[in-house]
Amino acid sequence: MQYQDLIDACQQEWHTYTEHDFVQQLATGTLDKQSFLHYLKQDFLFLKHYVRAYALAIYKANSLEDMRQALPTVHALLNSEIAHHVAWCEQWGISEQDMEQEPEDFGTVAYTRFVLDAGMSGDLVSLYSALAPCSIGYAAIGRQLAHQSTTVWEGNPYQTWLKLYSSDDFQTHVAHGAAHFNKLLADIDLNSQKGQQLIDTFRTATRMEIAFWQQGLNQSGAQL
Amino acid sequence: MQYQDLIDACQQEWHTYTEHDFVQQLATGTLDKQSFLHYLKQDFLFLKHYVRAYALAIYKANSLEDMRQALPTVHALLNSEIAHHVAWCEQWGISEQDMEQEPEDFGTVAYTRFVLDAGMSGDLVSLYSALAPCSIGYAAIGRQLAHQSTTVWEGNPYQTWLKLYSSDDFQTHVAHGAAHFNKLLADIDLNSQKGQQLIDTFRTATRMEIAFWQQGLNQSGAQL
Amino acid sequence: MQYQDLIDACQQEWHTYTEHDFVQQLATGTLDKQSFLHYLKQDFLFLKHYVRAYALAIYKANSLEDMRQALPTVHALLNSEIAHHVAWCEQWGISEQDMEQEPEDFGTVAYTRFVLDAGMSGDLVSLYSALAPCSIGYAAIGRQLAHQSTTVWEGNPYQTWLKLYSSDDFQTHVAHGAAHFNKLLADIDLNSQKGQQLIDTFRTATRMEIAFWQQGLNQSGAQL
Amino acid sequence: MQYQDLIDACQQEWHTYTEHDFVQQLATGTLDKQSFLHYLKQDFLFLKHYVRAYALAIYKANSLEDMRQALPTVHALLNSEIAHHVAWCEQWGISEQDMEQEPEDFGTVAYTRFVLDAGMSGDLVSLYSALAPCSIGYAAIGRQLAHQSTTVWEGNPYQTWLKLYSSDDFQTHVAHGAAHFNKLLADIDLNSQKGQQLIDTFRTATRMEIAFWQQGLNQSGAQL
Repeated sequence: MQYQDLIDACQQEWHTYTEHDFVQQLATGTLDKQSFLHYLKQDFLFLKHYVRAYALAIYKANSLEDMRQALPTVHALLNSEIAHHVAWCEQWGISEQDMEQEPEDFGTVAYTRFVLDAGMSGDLVSLYSALAPCSIGYAAIGRQLAHQSTTVWEGNPYQTWLKLYSSDDFQTHVAHGAAHFNKLLADIDLNSQKGQQLIDTFRTATRMEIAFWQQGLNQSGAQL
Repeated sequence: MQYQDLIDACQQEWHTYTEHDFVQQLATGTLDKQSFLHYLKQDFLFLKHYVRAYALAIYKANSLEDMRQALPTVHALLNSEIAHHVAWCEQWGISEQDMEQEPEDFGTVAYTRFVLDAGMSGDLVSLYSALAPCSIGYAAIGRQLAHQSTTVWEGNPYQTWLKLYSSDDFQTHVAHGAAHFNKLLADIDLNSQKGQQLIDTFRTATRMEIAFWQQGLNQSGAQL
Repeated sequence: MQYQDLIDACQQEWHTYTEHDFVQQLATGTLDKQSFLHYLKQDFLFLKHYVRAYALAIYKANSLEDMRQALPTVHALLNSEIAHHVAWCEQWGISEQDMEQEPEDFGTVAYTRFVLDAGMSGDLVSLYSALAPCSIGYAAIGRQLAHQSTTVWEGNPYQTWLKLYSSDDFQTHVAHGAAHFNKLLADIDLNSQKGQQLIDTFRTATRMEIAFWQQGLNQSGAQL
Repeated sequence: MQYQDLIDACQQEWHTYTEHDFVQQLATGTLDKQSFLHYLKQDFLFLKHYVRAYALAIYKANSLEDMRQALPTVHALLNSEIAHHVAWCEQWGISEQDMEQEPEDFGTVAYTRFVLDAGMSGDLVSLYSALAPCSIGYAAIGRQLAHQSTTVWEGNPYQTWLKLYSSDDFQTHVAHGAAHFNKLLADIDLNSQKGQQLIDTFRTATRMEIAFWQQGLNQSGAQL
């Protein structure tokens, strides 16, 4: 099987996730600022556990090659992406201390701990199946928003976000990881017990991504 | 420290959890049937991961005594409580197949995977700190509902639930586990790094219990 | 694939393990008493981690059926087999306290922790592949010793050991577990990445069984 | 407690480890070449699991600070130290392929999997207690050999090894990690349950280091 088989098996959840109102409102610049700020703060808390999940991929690796595949993500997250996220949030008036003190929202807990538990209880390919909706999904969203006519670039307060996920850098990074994931999936039969378990994992992780968008959207009109 | 220190450190969350509207409406028999049915189905999915968490306690144990402390819970869950839950649900018109096919709701994922990850990333006492809000909280709720004047027993459709958690059997079982938990906590200083981490774990688990009640309540008026 | 494929892929190690001098000397009753006593004490320490490994199988299970498959072993080990082992050791003059104070020998550490790590880093079928040499191997040894002409039954000080592992009860218990293992293996291709990893796991676990026999034999002539 | 308390509690094992004949023979240059080659090959296999253990420390971390503490070790191991080890082994006539095909010896399995299991079943400080004998011990050995009069530098075939572990770079790196370990230990009471468990973990890990030296020494006179 290939990662596209996972997407094909979860069409409905995949569309709800990649075409979510939160995403569409980012593209048009109409997203409520409180929704975006909530998302930014929760994304900081998410990133900590995302690092843990890629570290787990090193622990779970069977070869030096697999270890070296996961390391750059751990390294980039801890040494630049989190700092970049903090700097960006400061532009929105959110300090690192604000984010550290922010309680994890339910969707954040649900998504991050699901990935970690699916990875710990399964093997390396189970872990990547739980991680895939995030990386592959954000890349798909980035491409889609870059090409759809309704996306507003000029004056869009969320332009930085749109540029980040549609950038060649990000697309290439995800494509590289997806090719590695395909190698791990290559000789697993879609209809085997393992293949079906991977679909379940991918589907639930995709559903948790939907919950993550939704919890942002639910802040619309809320007071900080 | 003792488990009461954990409760004292999280007073606000503890009250929101143990005095939640879902619980009060169970006590008065006014809870919407759809809310209760949703709760029953999600509780079945919850129980599977609850078994996994107690099995993890055996894996994490340092002594035969600690292993033997966790085993009866695993045994009771797998050999009688889940079957009992299934039989009870059938009385409400929900078959085992219905429950197996029910997707895990976000609060169910959040709570169960949080417990498993807190337990896996920490040690045995971390795991029990994540599990404690469930056992100790349900016992506290059971005692409270049994003694408060507003509880309606006669004709209350949720009488079985009220009787279960206020029963001497349940109270004794929880008291036994809580005494063991206190032994593990005994020489940990509340103000140490570990003590503070256990408070964080207990608080988040309590917050996830609140989300679990709330997701039931949110079904009020919903169509099955 | 089936479990026999794992044995076939590791013919040399399998024979060294199942036909080890330790085993042959048990069969003829010529094994040095110090070797046997060392084995008994280390086996007690082994059993604690063996319980942990079967508890891990419950944590790693994907279904209630898989959980219920592992539970009886955890239950039997904690509630009767360890007690039985202790009682038996007392007949050889070894108290439970002696065994608790005995340092784990290198082969005991190597074997038990290998199983636990292979199980934790892989999935449920990885764990069972690490556990299989013990259960399936002891059953094979029991059958073999029961049928070979060189086995001495009368006056053999190790008769209890021989009877235990050649007993119908033990053989049936292992056959039941092996059938379950075969179901988990059924749709994994022997030549897939996963199939090859399972062979590696099974081979290393078999090599650790050899080390476990050997460390017993090495005590020959040693002072207690 | 501080890490010195762990050493003090395990005086006998610590001396056997840090003053082992393998080490003394390295210092005098009299170590059998086969012993050293066996050690080099097993050390390559050891390093893979050592990376996994430091990745586990990232997974187990409670804060970004703790994650960032472990990352440089993972990074250095995967991106330079293993390559350096491979290059060095080539000078001794051992190719990377030789090392990949070398079966893990029992002492290598015992030590690496013990560390990983102690870390997984305990918390972050448990993991570091299992890792400490390696880093802190090698630094102690390096200092000791640099200062003792019996060490032969000129013409010693193992000079590179001696220089590596007595180097300022290595000593500083270990001192930095040891200071972090002391912060994690700071408010744990030596006589608490946790303190005693950490001593057990440290002692067993030290014993496994002894086994690792010994398995090298046992190759003396062996044919490659």
